[in-house]
Amino acid sequence: MDLTEIKDPSFLRNMSNEELEQFAAQIRQFLIEKLSVTGGHLGANLGVVELTLALHKLFQSPKDKFIFDVGHQSYIHKILTGRAGQFDTLRQYKGLCGFPKVRESEHDVWETGHSSTSLSAAMGMTIARDLKKEDSHIVPIIGDGALTGGMALEALNHIGHEKKDIIVILNDNEMSIANNVGALHNALGRMRSAGKYRRVKDEMEWLMKKIPAVGGRLAQTAERVKDSMKYFMVPGMLFEEFGFTYYGPVDGHDFSALQENLQYAKKTGGPVLVHVITQKGKGYQPAETDMKDRWHGVGPYKIDSGEKIKPVDAPPAWSEVVSSTLQKKAREDERLTVITPAMILGSKLEKFQKEFPERLFDVGIAEQHAATMSAGLATQGMKPFLAIYSTFLQRAYDQLVHDVCRQNLNVMFGIDRAGLVGADGETHQGVFDISFLRSIPNMVVMMPKDENECQHMVHTAVEYDDGPIAVRYPRGNGLGVAMDDTFHSIEIGSWEVLKEGSDAAILTFGTTISLALQASKDLQAKGISVQVINARFIKPLDERMLHELMSVNMPILTIEEAVLKGGFGSSVLEFAEENGYQNQSIHRMGIPDRYIEHGKVDQLLEEIGLTKDQAIQHVQRMLPSKQQRA
Amino acid sequence: MDLTEIKDPSFLRNMSNEELEQFAAQIRQFLIEKLSVTGGHLGANLGVVELTLALHKLFQSPKDKFIFDVGHQSYIHKILTGRAGQFDTLRQYKGLCGFPKVRESEHDVWETGHSSTSLSAAMGMTIARDLKKEDSHIVPIIGDGALTGGMALEALNHIGHEKKDIIVILNDNEMSIANNVGALHNALGRMRSAGKYRRVKDEMEWLMKKIPAVGGRLAQTAERVKDSMKYFMVPGMLFEEFGFTYYGPVDGHDFSALQENLQYAKKTGGPVLVHVITQKGKGYQPAETDMKDRWHGVGPYKIDSGEKIKPVDAPPAWSEVVSSTLQKKAREDERLTVITPAMILGSKLEKFQKEFPERLFDVGIAEQHAATMSAGLATQGMKPFLAIYSTFLQRAYDQLVHDVCRQNLNVMFGIDRAGLVGADGETHQGVFDISFLRSIPNMVVMMPKDENECQHMVHTAVEYDDGPIAVRYPRGNGLGVAMDDTFHSIEIGSWEVLKEGSDAAILTFGTTISLALQASKDLQAKGISVQVINARFIKPLDERMLHELMSVNMPILTIEEAVLKGGFGSSVLEFAEENGYQNQSIHRMGIPDRYIEHGKVDQLLEEIGLTKDQAIQHVQRMLPSKQQRA
Repeated sequence: MDLTEIKDPSFLRNMSNEELEQFAAQIRQFLIEKLSVTGGHLGANLGVVELTLALHKLFQSPKDKFIFDVGHQSYIHKILTGRAGQFDTLRQYKGLCGFPKVRESEHDVWETGHSSTSLSAAMGMTIARDLKKEDSHIVPIIGDGALTGGMALEALNHIGHEKKDIIVILNDNEMSIANNVGALHNALGRMRSAGKYRRVKDEMEWLMKKIPAVGGRLAQTAERVKDSMKYFMVPGMLFEEFGFTYYGPVDGHDFSALQENLQYAKKTGGPVLVHVITQKGKGYQPAETDMKDRWHGVGPYKIDSGEKIKPVDAPPAWSEVVSSTLQKKAREDERLTVITPAMILGSKLEKFQKEFPERLFDVGIAEQHAATMSAGLATQGMKPFLAIYSTFLQRAYDQLVHDVCRQNLNVMFGIDRAGLVGADGETHQGVFDISFLRSIPNMVVMMPKDENECQHMVHTAVEYDDGPIAVRYPRGNGLGVAMDDTFHSIEIGSWEVLKEGSDAAILTFGTTISLALQASKDLQAKGISVQVINARFIKPLDERMLHELMSVNMPILTIEEAVLKGGFGSSVLEFAEENGYQNQSIHRMGIPDRYIEHGKVDQLLEEIGLTKDQAIQHVQRMLPSKQQRA
Repeated sequence: MDLTEIKDPSFLRNMSNEELEQFAAQIRQFLIEKLSVTGGHLGANLGVVELTLALHKLFQSPKDKFIFDVGHQSYIHKILTGRAGQFDTLRQYKGLCGFPKVRESEHDVWETGHSSTSLSAAMGMTIARDLKKEDSHIVPIIGDGALTGGMALEALNHIGHEKKDIIVILNDNEMSIANNVGALHNALGRMRSAGKYRRVKDEMEWLMKKIPAVGGRLAQTAERVKDSMKYFMVPGMLFEEFGFTYYGPVDGHDFSALQENLQYAKKTGGPVLVHVITQKGKGYQPAETDMKDRWHGVGPYKIDSGEKIKPVDAPPAWSEVVSSTLQKKAREDERLTVITPAMILGSKLEKFQKEFPERLFDVGIAEQHAATMSAGLATQGMKPFLAIYSTFLQRAYDQLVHDVCRQNLNVMFGIDRAGLVGADGETHQGVFDISFLRSIPNMVVMMPKDENECQHMVHTAVEYDDGPIAVRYPRGNGLGVAMDDTFHSIEIGSWEVLKEGSDAAILTFGTTISLALQASKDLQAKGISVQVINARFIKPLDERMLHELMSVNMPILTIEEAVLKGGFGSSVLEFAEENGYQNQSIHRMGIPDRYIEHGKVDQLLEEIGLTKDQAIQHVQRMLPSKQQRA
């Protein structure tokens, strides 16, 4: 079959299991080939080939609604709904999105990227269906990792209570982004093994009949025994306690078992949970045998060997620099502990974990808990470092406001993937953190110009004992600068002049510094002398330096790879207002008030005008008087 | 005993149960009397008198650490730790805080206000204790309502996994702020009744022995039956599944039972959960018999009758206006649904619930789920209205960014208790929402000048079909203005001139409008003519009006009862920058960059300088040229 000719999944209805198996193999081959060029979430998709085929065979999308949690496992769904031909553009600028996307297809009913949203979304759709008296199945598909996210548990609690018809597919791949953590995961393990005893039911009933008939209190007890039977006859007692009818565990690569259980689920009223066991990376040997889940999200690779195609001699990743600095600091400071919400791999914390297993805590996908647990550690004189992606820190906003900053606790934040992230797109851009962090009292926010300054900032954070402090750093690799052998503290709120200049000043930090330096160089050639300042403290500002600039009314351009509304540039405007610099000329460059989709970071910066040329134009526009003078 | 002479709780250790009972009665009398004057959280505290005494008798605070979830039930703890003498100042300016407060006492180790933080905080403290090799008990005390909050469930999952020694006290009062919602609550109900069967254990074992000895597969089954016994011999199987040792249910008003179970808990290793059943309002008849939990947080009342002492003929509460408008709109618009996270009472939604029981969803304490479920509803063409306090909306920040606004869904937000809230203090001030909302794309944010405009704004929100829209309104009662009989839509982004003026303009909204009008009046007397503008759209701004003002360089004062950093005033600065009004004079008044504690709102406004006099001074300072001209 030519996958690119598929328009909709209706053809699946007439396929035999044998045909389905052949088709599954074809899809796997397609994914392995396409992703070897584009990269993408290979492991998760290889795990759900049979599951997605079975779902599309037994339900009628888009009348029935599939809600993919996280959404990176929706590639097969995309193939089945007419998008196979677009896979060469996967996760590329203006290309196929790596997550469900409503405007791509009527079969995508819910957009995601972050985990643990599917059950809440599904509950909303279920309520709407019932109020509108429509007839359809609402089918969220959630992984065991995403299930530990607080919102998913809140939803589970509500769904179990309301008793509406909803079919939750628990895709238990025994591995989310890292190995799963938590009591729920342990319970799932028990359910998987309990599954072996399903035929036990008949035998159990036979045994129960052998219990002698008794009277009085004992009769009550015997009744209770019988009432309670369901708890050990079904392995999913935990979900039954939550008000769900449990089916499973089901082999997620066995079409017969899948279809049988999904049929049951369709016929059962109320909330149903189908527990499907899948293997991540199924059918691609290098991914199947990698226990560290390095095939979760991959770049290009060689199909035969599984070897990753990587740039030669790339500088260390920012997260690697942070992690190795923490490791060094931990050797001399017993207070240091590291907390990660299921991102040991992404935050490159494996070596830290190996050296300090008792001082690294992977709490699973649980950002709120991670932040407030860090606050709890800090109350006891510890120095917790929460390594978290900018986009996921959004999940812990109230914990920052209410628990960490209000109590002014010494919690350190390593805000990874700050700024535009590229291929993951609009759900993952780390562009809001400056706006939401700087309006919270007591918070210190830094961003380094290079990986050497980064290590000193991590050191500074560990040495700082006056409250919460964050160092944000971008996705990807450092600049390849030389690293100092010893650490030093950077004065809180101190900026650094990178290039002197007398006509204007550019205030910027992190990734946009190079753009500013280039602009300054080009302007120099035109006879305009522009100072470039590494505004490495986003909060607090370097007030001394701002007074110096503003007291001589030096035109100021601010540049940030973050949203303009309420951002760093706004804080410079605020400073000017608060200090009566009424005629101060300030221009701001940054991210406009809309969501930025996927693509290479350079393409995105071009699209939104965060470029050297724009910077040059902004500076020139600020200098009419000089031009008039000239 | 003179309660005001208590210095620490050590004296409890020698008290007999009889003495404890007398003492409990004395404490109840004290609370009922004191709170009849000051108001406060009476119901919750009356429910935990015996529990708090038992905890302080069996544990050694502050070496052992009590972490009160939410914290409004810590009054007895405050009495036992030397603060009885301060109860006349409870929740008043500079007085005793209504929540735990570290600076008040070494016995307060964790500050709260929002729910569901205690387990995460306790886990952090537990890890710190173990790393420091200290010997103490960590004892979080959490209500059944707070347990459904996502962060608490995340923590439960992590605690059960890590297996560290921690003693969770589940204070199950069968009623959080409203009746509890959710599958967990249903499970707790089963546990409460299962408690009756605890003696069943011996009888069960006798029965099991009667099962005939068998071989082969049946033997395996019989073993499984025996292994599984624990699941129906302990009622707390749900918690056992989460990795906890469960004790309970325990009568929370029976000193013997409490002490016995707490002793067990102290001796048990690993995570323990003690399920304590308490009655809210216990010992005060008007509170005990009120099934609607109107004694949760109360103002002054007459002790004998329980009659609330209220101002005569107060105008309707803002939340009442919103709720009744929704009720009217729901009659004509079938798409309208209302979602509340456990705040039916606080958001005054009882009448709506009565008329439209199938269109109101109380999801329990679950703000994240509430927001994303609303998004799910909106995908299906419904018009969900999420009624939520400003401070609790902080819990749903990522859901706003990632689910609601990114998909540009028609979710309406009724942001209650926006601005300073008074007696609840710094954990509850609704002062961050403007900063965090206006940096999110697609969001519309309004605030009405009076309750008549409020009803039109709710109508406007229902009629608006271009994405998310929020109306924020303060705590307390409206102004008593006349209400229009018919609704009209307010043009999105349109401001309103309340008073003409030619020397300066004040841009403000909501509660600070009256201050601006008074300042304008006083300035008029000095010959200064100040325009007052109802900037009812915080986002988007009224650009037409701003161009009019700025094109003539009219000095502008912005006033907001919200944080200055990134707030409304900053958006006016941003507008001036973006549109090249370089010499525009703008001053901003608002809340400085620190947390604001409890007290009457007027006292707090005075403290931070949000007053008429300050507004007058700001305007005068902006007019040097005029004064020079004069």
